[in-house]
Amino acid sequence: MRLADLGERSGVPLATVKYYLREGLLPPGRRINATQAEYDESHLRRLRLVRAMIQVGRIPVATVREVLAHVDDDSLGLTVRLGAALWALPHPAGEAPGAPAEAAGPSREAAGPSREAAVDPHRAAADLLVDELLARLGWSAARELGALSPAHRALVTTLATLHRLGYPLDADDLLPYARTMEQAAAHDLDRMEQLPTPREQTEYAVASAALFEPVLLNLRRLAQCEESNRRYGL
Amino acid sequence: MRLADLGERSGVPLATVKYYLREGLLPPGRRINATQAEYDESHLRRLRLVRAMIQVGRIPVATVREVLAHVDDDSLGLTVRLGAALWALPHPAGEAPGAPAEAAGPSREAAGPSREAAVDPHRAAADLLVDELLARLGWSAARELGALSPAHRALVTTLATLHRLGYPLDADDLLPYARTMEQAAAHDLDRMEQLPTPREQTEYAVASAALFEPVLLNLRRLAQCEESNRRYGL
Repeated sequence: MRLADLGERSGVPLATVKYYLREGLLPPGRRINATQAEYDESHLRRLRLVRAMIQVGRIPVATVREVLAHVDDDSLGLTVRLGAALWALPHPAGEAPGAPAEAAGPSREAAGPSREAAVDPHRAAADLLVDELLARLGWSAARELGALSPAHRALVTTLATLHRLGYPLDADDLLPYARTMEQAAAHDLDRMEQLPTPREQTEYAVASAALFEPVLLNLRRLAQCEESNRRYGL
Repeated sequence: MRLADLGERSGVPLATVKYYLREGLLPPGRRINATQAEYDESHLRRLRLVRAMIQVGRIPVATVREVLAHVDDDSLGLTVRLGAALWALPHPAGEAPGAPAEAAGPSREAAGPSREAAVDPHRAAADLLVDELLARLGWSAARELGALSPAHRALVTTLATLHRLGYPLDADDLLPYARTMEQAAAHDLDRMEQLPTPREQTEYAVASAALFEPVLLNLRRLAQCEESNRRYGL
């Protein structure tokens, strides 16, 4: 299809499609003459993903570019490819951006209490808590990767903040939630595996991480209301 | 304790404590003479909650005041009290605020396809999907309340957006996630019930809804990484 058709079929304004092309978020089409190029279904799929990440996920253009570089890296095994793409996404840390714990940036240590732990007792408590939780869950990969993983760092930061604000949690509190998220992750991968290629699978994982979170959170709120009605009546 | 002790024990700057008092987010202390008042543990607990909602949940002051009015309303049964407090919280709709579907505001119809459905096929599809999902789950309270509930509205809006962007989901996709969120909600209420009074229970539910979401989302990301490593190796 031509560029105009790509815009029409995706519902994305042509100026926006051209902007994504210029920014390298959408790969160039196959050139058919001096002024025209041909686009296919893979462009349409990518265009949807890019728009969803920017418009719904509110992810910065530079971050989208970084995520897509991993999605497109056919040299990677599936776990690393998925991991790299998902790690490049923003992680909710439950704290205003630029807050001290966030601004500290990635810790270089692979596991165990980080250097800041020595000065911040809340962070030290959160570090120990996450380590105990992962050990009890038997999540050995997550434990081994430790603070290299942004989800691990964001989890520690969030728990440190809750601790500091007077809401300390322990591993018994977190275990049932982690188990339910383990089930959710298994469903994520079951669904992903229905797609034919590793590239489409990685695209799906990114879309699901960036777009599916509000679905989960609203399902939780609905379930709370339902369960409360069941237990206490109206 | 005196006002200065309240600031010290909570770690909240005195100017901020005074601001919360002026804004009515913190109830006044028991006056002991012309210039001093006495504060107790309930003030400390409330101060933590208010600061967490504003600082971590980034919830506007007017919304915090509305939520707390429900938390403090001893005339309400527990389900309605919880519901009212949780409904007053912001709901993630997976879309930039002010986007058309959001700006349409609450629908007045309690259930079934809303009026906008006639003009937006994506919203109509999302309405039907949520209705089917709730029916299959047997979540009768959520189904009956329908679009009166902000979580229901936000879920429909999110699914309509995903549909519009080319990521249609069906009830089979959503059922396993809803079931895991049902388990999470049961844990939420188990934990809440350990607290002695309906007011403390409602405070806990609000804190958990506003602060616990980043914990859940990061646990999901960690679980995805773990499960992917299990299935595909490193």
